[in-house]
Amino acid sequence: MIPKRLRVPVEDLRFGALKLTGDTARYVARVHRLSAGDRLVVFDPAAVVEADAEIVRVGRDEVDLRAEAPRPATTRPRRGVTLIQGIGKGDKMDAVVRDATELGATRIVPALAERSVARPIGAGRADRWRRIAVEAARQCGRGDAPLIEPPMPFGEAFCRFAPAAALGGAGLCLDPSSSAPIGRAFRRLGQDAEAVFAVGPEGGFAEVELEQAVQAGFERVTLGALVLRTETVCAAVLGALLALEHDATRAGA
Amino acid sequence: MIPKRLRVPVEDLRFGALKLTGDTARYVARVHRLSAGDRLVVFDPAAVVEADAEIVRVGRDEVDLRAEAPRPATTRPRRGVTLIQGIGKGDKMDAVVRDATELGATRIVPALAERSVARPIGAGRADRWRRIAVEAARQCGRGDAPLIEPPMPFGEAFCRFAPAAALGGAGLCLDPSSSAPIGRAFRRLGQDAEAVFAVGPEGGFAEVELEQAVQAGFERVTLGALVLRTETVCAAVLGALLALEHDATRAGA
Repeated sequence: MIPKRLRVPVEDLRFGALKLTGDTARYVARVHRLSAGDRLVVFDPAAVVEADAEIVRVGRDEVDLRAEAPRPATTRPRRGVTLIQGIGKGDKMDAVVRDATELGATRIVPALAERSVARPIGAGRADRWRRIAVEAARQCGRGDAPLIEPPMPFGEAFCRFAPAAALGGAGLCLDPSSSAPIGRAFRRLGQDAEAVFAVGPEGGFAEVELEQAVQAGFERVTLGALVLRTETVCAAVLGALLALEHDATRAGA
Repeated sequence: MIPKRLRVPVEDLRFGALKLTGDTARYVARVHRLSAGDRLVVFDPAAVVEADAEIVRVGRDEVDLRAEAPRPATTRPRRGVTLIQGIGKGDKMDAVVRDATELGATRIVPALAERSVARPIGAGRADRWRRIAVEAARQCGRGDAPLIEPPMPFGEAFCRFAPAAALGGAGLCLDPSSSAPIGRAFRRLGQDAEAVFAVGPEGGFAEVELEQAVQAGFERVTLGALVLRTETVCAAVLGALLALEHDATRAGA
């Protein structure tokens, strides 16, 4: 592994003076013990830009930087990939957000199922998932982060995020009772077209949800005969999509 | 989801009287509250056979069954898939064993890296991973379980488990610094031929390990430009391999 320059996320990145606070300041000053004159990379996942920066001063709970001119982020997924994910028990959704960010999802829709165990979902949960996504983006080297939608019922998610089939997009609903292999559906996915995956909660989709998915234009597909935990499906299908891509996920590649 | 009959693992499955003890007995009698006359499926992952069985008596800490004639397990991976996995910190290897079992690995080799954080590895760890594999097999509906090898250095694992290229097998070493996409390597993998994946520990492979891999016939491949955690790679590559298969993983399909 080539040692890489430290990367930290910021908001509203622009040329010139910049202040890190909170966890990010502590991460730079205490965990990595950087000090005045050290250089790092700051990235703004919302604007998908990044910049080299130099530390001007390390204060008690803040770090002052001087950023050079921002440039478009070099590493970001080249395909739009939406994951509609049934919210599981406990911190399963945290793990899914982390995995999905590493594996190139560009939008995550936390979905409430008929059989959802964890409800209601407070607004704080979505904010937590957004923070996890930004941290995972930092760790995996992405210049963007997936958009985290507010939690909504599966039926609404299917309607709002069904991909445009006319543009080569594919909406795939992971359903162990289907006999259509996902690999075959992948082959119909247009180059750079959007892929949308829907993954049920523990216990799988209710029949009414599968019907809603099909009505919205989703295809029911399977990864095989084995019954996967909901938190395993995400990494498996996103990994499969990455493997399908001929070349790496660098912008413009 | 179709409700399925309860499945429990046993050793030395044969026709006739059978006794469940320990956790398995508690699982049947207390968690699922089955009683005399109830039916379930017993499977022997080592022999890859299963049988219908009827409960004869539920005792204090044991359950007596009568098994019908064993038959070959109906659901098992059709391809040999070996995962050579760098042992990570804490319980990461537990999660990898669980994911790999669900996603069809048939052999798992816990590997000690130059940079391995967790060492030495006691014999108890491998036994623990074997129990986790059997439990994951039960959950996902597999009739077998992956063989868990004793922990060994990566160099030894590369030599012992390099697949026979002449038979269409492929040995793939996941290396983020490679520019060879894994999808291209998959296309050279023969139908039903063995696939061997090597995944480094946190921080990736040491250069000497990558050289050992190449000397043993492994190809360095990548899933893309993003840096994955070691425990994410396993699900991503095994999911990709499943997606490649045209049909489901039922035996004889």
